[in-house]
Amino acid sequence: MAKTVVSSATKEVVIGFDRPFCIIGERINPTGRKKLAAEMAAGDFSTVEQDCMAQVAAGAHMLDVNAGIPLADEPAILAQTIQLVQSLTDVPLSIDSSIVEALEAGLSVYQGKALVNSVTGEEERLESVLPLIKKHGAAVVAISNDETGISEDPDVRFAVAKKIVERAADYGIPAADVVVDPLVMPIGALGGAGRQVFSIVRRLRDELGVNTTCGASNISFGLPNRHALNAVFLAMAAGAGMTSAILNPLHEEEMAGLRAADVLLNHDKDCQTWIRRYRDPNAGGGEAAGRRGERRRRRG
Amino acid sequence: MAKTVVSSATKEVVIGFDRPFCIIGERINPTGRKKLAAEMAAGDFSTVEQDCMAQVAAGAHMLDVNAGIPLADEPAILAQTIQLVQSLTDVPLSIDSSIVEALEAGLSVYQGKALVNSVTGEEERLESVLPLIKKHGAAVVAISNDETGISEDPDVRFAVAKKIVERAADYGIPAADVVVDPLVMPIGALGGAGRQVFSIVRRLRDELGVNTTCGASNISFGLPNRHALNAVFLAMAAGAGMTSAILNPLHEEEMAGLRAADVLLNHDKDCQTWIRRYRDPNAGGGEAAGRRGERRRRRG
Repeated sequence: MAKTVVSSATKEVVIGFDRPFCIIGERINPTGRKKLAAEMAAGDFSTVEQDCMAQVAAGAHMLDVNAGIPLADEPAILAQTIQLVQSLTDVPLSIDSSIVEALEAGLSVYQGKALVNSVTGEEERLESVLPLIKKHGAAVVAISNDETGISEDPDVRFAVAKKIVERAADYGIPAADVVVDPLVMPIGALGGAGRQVFSIVRRLRDELGVNTTCGASNISFGLPNRHALNAVFLAMAAGAGMTSAILNPLHEEEMAGLRAADVLLNHDKDCQTWIRRYRDPNAGGGEAAGRRGERRRRRG
Repeated sequence: MAKTVVSSATKEVVIGFDRPFCIIGERINPTGRKKLAAEMAAGDFSTVEQDCMAQVAAGAHMLDVNAGIPLADEPAILAQTIQLVQSLTDVPLSIDSSIVEALEAGLSVYQGKALVNSVTGEEERLESVLPLIKKHGAAVVAISNDETGISEDPDVRFAVAKKIVERAADYGIPAADVVVDPLVMPIGALGGAGRQVFSIVRRLRDELGVNTTCGASNISFGLPNRHALNAVFLAMAAGAGMTSAILNPLHEEEMAGLRAADVLLNHDKDCQTWIRRYRDPNAGGGEAAGRRGERRRRRG
């Protein structure tokens, strides 16, 4: 089974089937955030700094960094943002752009082994992104759509993912450095969207042994009580073999769902993370902490 | 794939792989409830009535009825409780006792096709319970332990379940009328407890095609934030193929987890139950309902 190793200058993160679910913070992204876009275009990175620190504090293992601002110099801003974020935190980054020049600019300043987000099954994209991945020794997110769009047939989406993994191998990139995004559709519009993802992820694990990721929140688009639905989707996806996702780690419901999934898949040794987090959410002493201290002593 | 059909005098419930998860209310059970035990022994069924109505209102599809009171006449009390509950609600019942005479007394007054809880793989239990199931045309919960206890090896637990299904067939009871309980162990003590259950349930579905159930709350025994963990466990179990569980439907977290699992497995048509429940949890009019009414009209 594949282990995807990514790193910063000083820290390594392993995405894998026997590891805790890898949480990639999604917040450093100006898409749909006008104020952040204007700030970044003007060279003001104060919100980026806040988003960086808050996500790491909330438990993100990696951060996605996107600088997609219309009419701005995306390659330059992305490179600048990456340098700033790497000066603030040691978690590895996912370099996120639809523009190949921006990915290249980001990779050229990145310290460590980055995850690049993303390549698709489209010929032009494969031929422009994969050589970059190889050149920089990076890992890459492979999105399972191609020139024909996004198929509703899980077998077709699996086949596209398989094609990308094979093409990557042609460029000398091992399957361990390809993290497949099976594409999550809104379940309110397409009732089979959950089963599709679970089925593709299971095949990707069982047949190709590759890691997987997704943007989880799309599943609940248009529905009420989205965070609860996202949380259960993430846990069920983890149960099917998904090993990472791009999400907002400031949302407690999603994080609780993934912490529970780690416990239930035996990826949280002795439930240590769960117990530490929930024994007393407002910890720091007092009566409850005292009682628990006693219990621990009695056990020991 | 098996469909387990249970019924009251007037209502049928189907447990199956293409159906919403079947929620069996666990509250009518004096085990560990001293006050309820004393009431039931004294012929006072007011708490039973309340537990019955509250669980059905909360969304239970079936109710488990247990009258296990030390030193009391369990067969008589169980029969009386069943008659009372059947006079109050039309949801089918699970007749729950470790005493074969109590199961017999319950079955003799039950109107419809009951689920009997339970038989194990122990020879004596198989030979006393299965003829009763056949005689009354009931369905039965099969617990995957035997004379040797509860194995930690999922393959052994699967083999015990298979033996019970085969023995039931010898008595003329179809596999569709056997609902296997793979046994849920506390994950705080046994880190592999979740994976064990998911693996057994998947094999029971794929190889035997039988329905499954469990007492879910055992998974979180001794851990903090139990309801959140139970909820994710139930959803992941549903993802692995579990089709019912015995739980307290008054716990909103577990119910939300199972409603989400129904959505994600495409068992909640057009997300109708989810939307009805969460569009406005405090519904009944007011500003929010008005706004949502507008949105619905625009869509239509």
